[in-house]
Amino acid sequence: MREVPTPEPGPGEVRLRITAAGACHSDSFVMGLSAEQYAGFGYPLPMTLGHEGVGVVDALGEGATGVELGEPVAVYGPQGCGRCHSCAAGIENYCSHAAALGITPPGLGKDGVMAEYMIVTDPRLLIPLGGLDPVATVALTDAGLTPYHAIMGSLELLVPGSVAVVIGVGGLGHLAIQLLRTLTSATVIALDISQSKLDFAREVGAHHAFLSDDQAAAQVAEALGPGPVTAVFDFVTTEPVLKIVRSLSGPRTDLVLVGAGAVETTVGLLGQPFGSRIRAPYWGSRPELMEVLELARTGRLSVDTESFSLDEGPEAYRRLHDGELRGRAVVVP
Amino acid sequence: MREVPTPEPGPGEVRLRITAAGACHSDSFVMGLSAEQYAGFGYPLPMTLGHEGVGVVDALGEGATGVELGEPVAVYGPQGCGRCHSCAAGIENYCSHAAALGITPPGLGKDGVMAEYMIVTDPRLLIPLGGLDPVATVALTDAGLTPYHAIMGSLELLVPGSVAVVIGVGGLGHLAIQLLRTLTSATVIALDISQSKLDFAREVGAHHAFLSDDQAAAQVAEALGPGPVTAVFDFVTTEPVLKIVRSLSGPRTDLVLVGAGAVETTVGLLGQPFGSRIRAPYWGSRPELMEVLELARTGRLSVDTESFSLDEGPEAYRRLHDGELRGRAVVVP
Amino acid sequence: MREVPTPEPGPGEVRLRITAAGACHSDSFVMGLSAEQYAGFGYPLPMTLGHEGVGVVDALGEGATGVELGEPVAVYGPQGCGRCHSCAAGIENYCSHAAALGITPPGLGKDGVMAEYMIVTDPRLLIPLGGLDPVATVALTDAGLTPYHAIMGSLELLVPGSVAVVIGVGGLGHLAIQLLRTLTSATVIALDISQSKLDFAREVGAHHAFLSDDQAAAQVAEALGPGPVTAVFDFVTTEPVLKIVRSLSGPRTDLVLVGAGAVETTVGLLGQPFGSRIRAPYWGSRPELMEVLELARTGRLSVDTESFSLDEGPEAYRRLHDGELRGRAVVVP
Amino acid sequence: MREVPTPEPGPGEVRLRITAAGACHSDSFVMGLSAEQYAGFGYPLPMTLGHEGVGVVDALGEGATGVELGEPVAVYGPQGCGRCHSCAAGIENYCSHAAALGITPPGLGKDGVMAEYMIVTDPRLLIPLGGLDPVATVALTDAGLTPYHAIMGSLELLVPGSVAVVIGVGGLGHLAIQLLRTLTSATVIALDISQSKLDFAREVGAHHAFLSDDQAAAQVAEALGPGPVTAVFDFVTTEPVLKIVRSLSGPRTDLVLVGAGAVETTVGLLGQPFGSRIRAPYWGSRPELMEVLELARTGRLSVDTESFSLDEGPEAYRRLHDGELRGRAVVVP
Repeated sequence: MREVPTPEPGPGEVRLRITAAGACHSDSFVMGLSAEQYAGFGYPLPMTLGHEGVGVVDALGEGATGVELGEPVAVYGPQGCGRCHSCAAGIENYCSHAAALGITPPGLGKDGVMAEYMIVTDPRLLIPLGGLDPVATVALTDAGLTPYHAIMGSLELLVPGSVAVVIGVGGLGHLAIQLLRTLTSATVIALDISQSKLDFAREVGAHHAFLSDDQAAAQVAEALGPGPVTAVFDFVTTEPVLKIVRSLSGPRTDLVLVGAGAVETTVGLLGQPFGSRIRAPYWGSRPELMEVLELARTGRLSVDTESFSLDEGPEAYRRLHDGELRGRAVVVP
Repeated sequence: MREVPTPEPGPGEVRLRITAAGACHSDSFVMGLSAEQYAGFGYPLPMTLGHEGVGVVDALGEGATGVELGEPVAVYGPQGCGRCHSCAAGIENYCSHAAALGITPPGLGKDGVMAEYMIVTDPRLLIPLGGLDPVATVALTDAGLTPYHAIMGSLELLVPGSVAVVIGVGGLGHLAIQLLRTLTSATVIALDISQSKLDFAREVGAHHAFLSDDQAAAQVAEALGPGPVTAVFDFVTTEPVLKIVRSLSGPRTDLVLVGAGAVETTVGLLGQPFGSRIRAPYWGSRPELMEVLELARTGRLSVDTESFSLDEGPEAYRRLHDGELRGRAVVVP
Repeated sequence: MREVPTPEPGPGEVRLRITAAGACHSDSFVMGLSAEQYAGFGYPLPMTLGHEGVGVVDALGEGATGVELGEPVAVYGPQGCGRCHSCAAGIENYCSHAAALGITPPGLGKDGVMAEYMIVTDPRLLIPLGGLDPVATVALTDAGLTPYHAIMGSLELLVPGSVAVVIGVGGLGHLAIQLLRTLTSATVIALDISQSKLDFAREVGAHHAFLSDDQAAAQVAEALGPGPVTAVFDFVTTEPVLKIVRSLSGPRTDLVLVGAGAVETTVGLLGQPFGSRIRAPYWGSRPELMEVLELARTGRLSVDTESFSLDEGPEAYRRLHDGELRGRAVVVP
Repeated sequence: MREVPTPEPGPGEVRLRITAAGACHSDSFVMGLSAEQYAGFGYPLPMTLGHEGVGVVDALGEGATGVELGEPVAVYGPQGCGRCHSCAAGIENYCSHAAALGITPPGLGKDGVMAEYMIVTDPRLLIPLGGLDPVATVALTDAGLTPYHAIMGSLELLVPGSVAVVIGVGGLGHLAIQLLRTLTSATVIALDISQSKLDFAREVGAHHAFLSDDQAAAQVAEALGPGPVTAVFDFVTTEPVLKIVRSLSGPRTDLVLVGAGAVETTVGLLGQPFGSRIRAPYWGSRPELMEVLELARTGRLSVDTESFSLDEGPEAYRRLHDGELRGRAVVVP
């Protein structure tokens, strides 16, 4: 916890007064890096953490237009160059130039949202929040947007009669279940290592919930009959989990790896099911964030949230790290 | 022709030095309006015409970022609010708020490109031109983008074995033919009232070209066998032409009306072919303009152009109006 | 009501014992035709009515494979040639050759399902019913499939934040409302001329329901704020209703005309909203019928049904014709 | 080479007189299996090889309808159950029930096309050939259909400005290059280990062709500038080739593995490029085969073919196996 001067917006920039900031496993990941790894990512020191943020427009730099002072907004994190083909379509999360230009999300390379104030480099990155509650909404900017984007990539497969599996019922997973229920008519199955998470999964809409152990595939088959599932959304991405993912898959299954991991596996026509895809979607697009906020506005999506003061921030991260949180931790500056 | 002071860019704005400006039938349409109609569209007086423009970045207002002084760029015309869901996806041509906010394209409500200098309200509206020749390229910003967008909306239907008809082989139509040849494997048929335009159509890639008279449908059937065509792109949109459009259509035909017209017709399950769509696409999106420029860059699209000095501008419009131009007139300030 | 001999399946054909037959407005339409109109459609006399049917496989012609004796099945009505590109994709409802080959749906050109037995010309037209209840399910083969197919054509527009309007809350409309709720996250508005139908609409899931009078557009705007709706599904298709449809539409609105009507209107870039489409979808595809049955199987779709014996058939049609039915009439032979 | 009696079609079946049969690497693969592996695939002995076939309808079993005696047809190989959701959409290559039901393609489990006559179990599997030349066309049923289907799965990414890489310029690869040129406006790059194959690639339309060695990625970057390619179509799928595939990829790249191989690699959000997909498409759908034949009919696709008599069949396979063929070997019974 460190005092920093209130930052001034440069030309074209916007200063936000933060009203809620989400704590994410990625933050723990950053904090757990060794000095060498941290430098390897090119991160500066000190760097304010946090990439899930909502706030109120507090000051406008020269030439910054399109937002009003006092307007409540959500921050779109995976900012790109803003000029290339991907960025023109709002798909800034896949900007090909961001890496080369050194453009990084808040809290993952430049100062993030775990503060009272924050500079946003361009008004296009601010999505109108309207009357949505900051604390209840802030986690949607990553924990909501990421599974939304992951599901959108499989949507054409998730027709009536399809089956979707969610592995890992945490901050992202419990929103993935809700999203699958509202966006598709798939039968939704949740897998997790903890019985209390399975209850959580059923509570937020899973049709079935099973322990993610050796018996998982057999239990899915018993519940739904034989045959591959349509899509698996894996929010864990470790070796044992990928083994389960593969045992559930068959012709045309979408294997969607969303967890921050890297695992060895076999691919190719004789190495993976015919017509299957192994996808690794990242965060989401600008229009998709708007769509996620609309789902909240119309009552279809609700984040399980616990809130903390800025002083309690370290405690929030500790509980997140120790798996003591059911949904998402939100820090209120 | 009138002298105006060189305009100054406000905060966030950009001044272009125009290097080429395209003359379009829509400009003639605007010039042909009565005083009352002109006022009805809400157009100011005087208003510089022209909505197809390329130029060089000449001055940057405070806080305008993302373009470099001296950079050659094309102007994206159908500007929207820049903040809504459509605009976030780059589909500014269908912005729902532009009308209410009084946002208009250059030359169609605010000062356009038929001048030495022009103000662009936001750098996002400037698409990098790279090494493309200004005169050869400028018409792509409307005469290329509009048919590109129209064709994109029918693309999933235009599979191998499909048939596409282009009616009206002028500035837009001769590019539509080239686009259909490069973007699809449809058989392309052109219809026009003038024999010389039919030669032009064949020259730019049409497989067949027929006069757009009472015999048109019969000639298409003779060339291709019986059965409906897959899509018709009508760049004229008058009553007699719509009659031809409908006589060519059948189950699932796309009737795409691109000409600046309004015609009475019958619709409904018993009033139009089963599964058919009557579409009225407008201009195109920001990513689509980039794609059109890429087609030019890779030699797949070439505008038939005649160029004029700024002083010859009125003569360019006269020849356009009198149908004396084969492709597109370009004014070089 | 007329006794006919039990028909024998020819080579490759299947005989069904009908377990439920749906009565549809189209049947009333057929019965209301003058002798000349009837002949104009090429219908034979006598012709058994009925194109919504489920039954049990009762006898197999020589070489008919793929179904088992005693298997409960639903009849796919809009049969095509089975060999062309559309039919290969299961989109037999848009077969280009059916008309030329004289292929017609049951009850709309050849003997239909309002009988104890019926011949189906190919096993591919029989969709496994599994444990679904015949009476509760039969109407899905048209009254469910038709709005499903209509909605599928607009699906990519119906993102979170979108608005869908259903006009006409009868047999098809009350299923359209349920389908929109389960397939999309659009806000659903129902319009009808009768207050009791508005209650019905709310009961099956409409967020708002208004009388389809001069005030309809204003009431929609009051409920949702200004701006065009995303899609209108019109199950009536008369002149006054089309007027409402158009008053609700704006840039990119999908105007989907499903009612058996034909109406004059203005089209073209200056005659309909920018980017709008006027579509006339017809019935649905074979895979889509499977998807609709899956929705019933998983409890997402429920037909409001009143059942009648075969002897009460004429009474069922009378009540249908007089608007005395809320949902769908089903005849049980 | 072995004499077998002319087979008789059972009820619903069709006998073809084969007019051309393609020899494929998969056949060599089958011939190279050990007795144990062969049994492991469940293949019978003896089994006629060959899964690329065209012929003439020679005899119809009882109840077989939809084809005429004497009609020239192509055989759709990846037959499914014909009744499930995938099969109803013509996507029989991903039938979920074929394996359980023991349904196999000709020459890969049941008698294939390397014979004078062959039994086809259902007329739906016969695609009208029209006036197409049997020898010039037969390879399209696999060597054309497989890359067509692979490319279709990436089509929405292959917009103007995109880059597609084909690795392995053999029977399938030389058709993939032609298909990319006619179906997309991507820049097409070919990689192969042999200089003569690179010439072949340029001849059939590749914009660039490089040796598939350690320098491949650098040469692609030199030709096109930095940045990832859009899609890689790998017709080889070995470990060294996958290394090249991965070195070319970046955000959103489609890695499409078409070769009959299985390779270890790293996957997951931190193990593969953001938004990338590793796909393993298999053969193609029934409507897609029709589309491929339409491309041949309209002169957009041409197989490099060498033909052999039935007696020369073994020699054809030897040359195929030894890499002495440029395109495809066809056996004419």
